[in-house]
Amino acid sequence: MDIAKKRVVIVGGVAGGATCAARLRRVDENAEIVVLERGSHVSFANCGLPYYVGNVIHDESKLLLATPALFQERFNIDVRTRNEVTAIHREERFITVRNLETGREYREPYDALVLSPGALPICPPWPGIRLPGIFTLRTIPDSRHMRDWIDARNPRTAVVVGAGFIGLETAENLAHRGIAITLIELADQVMPPLDKEMAAYAQQRLEAQGIELRLGDGVTGFEQHHNGALRVHTQAGAAFDANMVVLALGVRPQTQLARNAGLELGERGGIRVDEQMRTSDPGIWAVGDAVEVRNRITGAWELIPLAGPANRQGRVAADAICGRDVQYEGALATAVCGFFGLTVALTGATEKALSRAGIEDYQAVYLHPNHHVAYYPGAHPIHMKLLYRKSDGRVLGAQAVGDAGAERRIDVIATAMQMKATVHDLEEAELCYAPQYGAAKDPVNLAGFIAGNALRGDMAFAPWDCVHSTSAFLLDVRELHEFRAGYIPGCVNIPLGQLRSRLSELPRHKDIWVTCGVGQRAYYACRILSQHGLRARILSGGYSTYCVLYPEKSGRARETEVAKVELQADPVSV
Amino acid sequence: MDIAKKRVVIVGGVAGGATCAARLRRVDENAEIVVLERGSHVSFANCGLPYYVGNVIHDESKLLLATPALFQERFNIDVRTRNEVTAIHREERFITVRNLETGREYREPYDALVLSPGALPICPPWPGIRLPGIFTLRTIPDSRHMRDWIDARNPRTAVVVGAGFIGLETAENLAHRGIAITLIELADQVMPPLDKEMAAYAQQRLEAQGIELRLGDGVTGFEQHHNGALRVHTQAGAAFDANMVVLALGVRPQTQLARNAGLELGERGGIRVDEQMRTSDPGIWAVGDAVEVRNRITGAWELIPLAGPANRQGRVAADAICGRDVQYEGALATAVCGFFGLTVALTGATEKALSRAGIEDYQAVYLHPNHHVAYYPGAHPIHMKLLYRKSDGRVLGAQAVGDAGAERRIDVIATAMQMKATVHDLEEAELCYAPQYGAAKDPVNLAGFIAGNALRGDMAFAPWDCVHSTSAFLLDVRELHEFRAGYIPGCVNIPLGQLRSRLSELPRHKDIWVTCGVGQRAYYACRILSQHGLRARILSGGYSTYCVLYPEKSGRARETEVAKVELQADPVSV
Repeated sequence: MDIAKKRVVIVGGVAGGATCAARLRRVDENAEIVVLERGSHVSFANCGLPYYVGNVIHDESKLLLATPALFQERFNIDVRTRNEVTAIHREERFITVRNLETGREYREPYDALVLSPGALPICPPWPGIRLPGIFTLRTIPDSRHMRDWIDARNPRTAVVVGAGFIGLETAENLAHRGIAITLIELADQVMPPLDKEMAAYAQQRLEAQGIELRLGDGVTGFEQHHNGALRVHTQAGAAFDANMVVLALGVRPQTQLARNAGLELGERGGIRVDEQMRTSDPGIWAVGDAVEVRNRITGAWELIPLAGPANRQGRVAADAICGRDVQYEGALATAVCGFFGLTVALTGATEKALSRAGIEDYQAVYLHPNHHVAYYPGAHPIHMKLLYRKSDGRVLGAQAVGDAGAERRIDVIATAMQMKATVHDLEEAELCYAPQYGAAKDPVNLAGFIAGNALRGDMAFAPWDCVHSTSAFLLDVRELHEFRAGYIPGCVNIPLGQLRSRLSELPRHKDIWVTCGVGQRAYYACRILSQHGLRARILSGGYSTYCVLYPEKSGRARETEVAKVELQADPVSV
Repeated sequence: MDIAKKRVVIVGGVAGGATCAARLRRVDENAEIVVLERGSHVSFANCGLPYYVGNVIHDESKLLLATPALFQERFNIDVRTRNEVTAIHREERFITVRNLETGREYREPYDALVLSPGALPICPPWPGIRLPGIFTLRTIPDSRHMRDWIDARNPRTAVVVGAGFIGLETAENLAHRGIAITLIELADQVMPPLDKEMAAYAQQRLEAQGIELRLGDGVTGFEQHHNGALRVHTQAGAAFDANMVVLALGVRPQTQLARNAGLELGERGGIRVDEQMRTSDPGIWAVGDAVEVRNRITGAWELIPLAGPANRQGRVAADAICGRDVQYEGALATAVCGFFGLTVALTGATEKALSRAGIEDYQAVYLHPNHHVAYYPGAHPIHMKLLYRKSDGRVLGAQAVGDAGAERRIDVIATAMQMKATVHDLEEAELCYAPQYGAAKDPVNLAGFIAGNALRGDMAFAPWDCVHSTSAFLLDVRELHEFRAGYIPGCVNIPLGQLRSRLSELPRHKDIWVTCGVGQRAYYACRILSQHGLRARILSGGYSTYCVLYPEKSGRARETEVAKVELQADPVSV
């Protein structure tokens, strides 16, 4: 047993900090461990807050995963809530703390210091932003205030500012309470982390649920009517009246303490750490929403305010403090969001993120498989986008949207990516299949097949962004009745079954871009054409993808229609 | 374009054969492709048959995924149903075929021959086995006969012989039709592919649904009463009366054609093939239920009658025939079965399979996490068993049982195993998390943590099979009220929160085996004890696992009680 006890002080006791503390105790029974939390709660379920507001979770106490008393009893950890750390004295290795209840200031020495201060909701200095009825949602008290307001005033209308994950979860939960929602988002799409055409499915669902969307417009300020109602003004000069407003503009890492102490910050404004989560001061670690982490795919430094990575980082920091050989390998930023029955999940890089990182060696494929075999009742399409490296087939990212099974396929692809899989590994994935669970050729396999076929040279992709300007011959191989219901302008229709006998109708010295409903028949057609010496390429994902890429052209991007995905045309999906 | 067209004949047109045919066409537009199928249908949804019997799938036509006409039109493939191949003439490269409609025999020459004859239900020569009212379920006509029988006679009782996947799916579907079920199984457990203690959860669910189970007893024969009812006799001398009987004893590969042609068979009775699915004759390939494949984990040859591997093999054979460089890497045998709301999923090796293969370098861990965070309504436990190699941490297999989310975790672990992951990779898996989808520490992460902790030497496992005979000190660290509700005989109770102050009550020179509800608090206790110089080990999975390992001792293995899994005691599961 050590005689000199190590003294570890942790600033912030929610996800990363609490995990770090508990892990430290397991690794070192003798360490003195102190957790200082400015807020009223440690280790609370912040991901549950929208659902507490929506009364899906009835009982506030359920949000408290662990109390200071439990930390003391179970882990022999000294947890002090409402204690704010005000300064770090790096040379002398102590911090100053203010007890927010008593106002008393005191010093706390440390051998190792862990910063887990988290992030704060972004609150721009808009006129009127402090008006009553305007909320953010980050803490249990925040959610209680919002709940109490709703219970007391029974608001009929709300404006949610920001259509990211929290904004959409909050919108759904307010709608669940009977409140009519207007959603204002500065970007020209909902869910800005997603690629725009994938976010279109979310947008369709929100609209179908009666959420009023105001995209591509920003808030400029708030006013209060004499009757108490709020008016929200936008950059475009519009105004929206509402009984309440929720700001869901994202979060900003809490770095003031680190900055004041002269610790290095990164380009994205988070605390810079090494692979052991150590800051530029070798006695100070940092974890969670306040740090920048490497994106495993692009290598870019990013702010990834997610609970999973925060927990992992807390564990790595604890091990590193105890002298263990560990590394944080960066984040894939796997994430999921559910609202109005729709699941939106993603992992790794989006096309946007690749562009931002200057990466051009990639290909996107689209597919729309059913979440289980079509012959079993209740099949729903999963709209998927897979990104892979053209030069070697490495999987770079995936997005999936659907009523069922989207998170499962993203989990599989995330695991494959973690293991540095190529699309050929996805082709071979051996996943759970029974009729109510999937298909013998799972959506993940299909994504692998499509990409693998292209990598093997069995087919080539035409660029969707040139579909309206190309001089290529556009060929749609669906049946006539499908074609008539909607098609890409300029397409000629030859059903797949007639293709072999009608080859003479096709140009021999011109590119032929082939499409169908979801891409499968186009691929079959491509194989026929290219083996007959014609120059064929496919428009990945077919007309279903066209409808989200060009909703204004197709004029029928409504989810109800797009979702009518054809039965898997490939035989033997048993 | 080739002048000499390759002529490929495929024997059998369901999963592997139909996939092989369609893939061949995509790779070689010029090949002549003939599919000969003895039955009335190609490419039908055999996995859907129990659900057609149960009227979950109403319409028989939904089971037909592709018709001969579609194969002709779309793929230019000549599909002939009701044509049975009677002999292979390897030297001259032709087969003889009998048209079962006309009786005509004819020859069909081939350049490449693919055998995809499938498997037949096992039907032992028991007395009375041909009596009316005794069914097997393998083809569409089989399912139609069973449906018609049920519609016409409205049976009140049925005996299902065999409690494997098909037996259980059939039992559920018959119960769905209002029929009381007795399930007879020769093994001493249901779902013989699973380890017995994991199958216990399935057994509990079946019993809770009123299915009468007769385990460890075999059928010896059948009699018919004068009123038409059937009597089923068993080895143990019991007799069961029923209005109908379903035989679900598994399948036997159809190898007569291969055997008669002198092709090499394997030790398990299937056709032996190489990594390109080629038989001992270089002009003949074989795929699907009739072949033996290498288990990716144990390396053993196995019969794996699953649709996913069959499709993959069909694809590999087609590519190989066209001269492409491909390999079939063997199977993980990932599988899933759902009945009465329960999902049972597995991948890779079970403990049974490891023993059979003579592999001793492994460790089993048990866990019982919730499928999503406990604070969000509707959380269900997933009972999991993970097997890994002790020497290097490689994941060897996993089984999961639960009302929700089991297949998703098995898919993730299957993907990890395919990529040769270790348990440390499971620790780092970055999976989808929002409150309704999982936990920041996903069940997969938890499985990795437990195994990783052991591999790092932070804890050790006590062997469950010695729990009643050991001289070790048995310590249960749950709260007193939990302990009182049921405990392992001989256990002493010291709640975790009191452990540090009661260390003197524990023996210093004796092994201490620690248990709790699901294993988490036992691990915390272990860390405390071992850092205080005591020799502690944990009983993996805690009392929840004890209840399925020793249902007769615990006397409370009823699912309703076992399923009361404690709230995750680890803070910060947000």
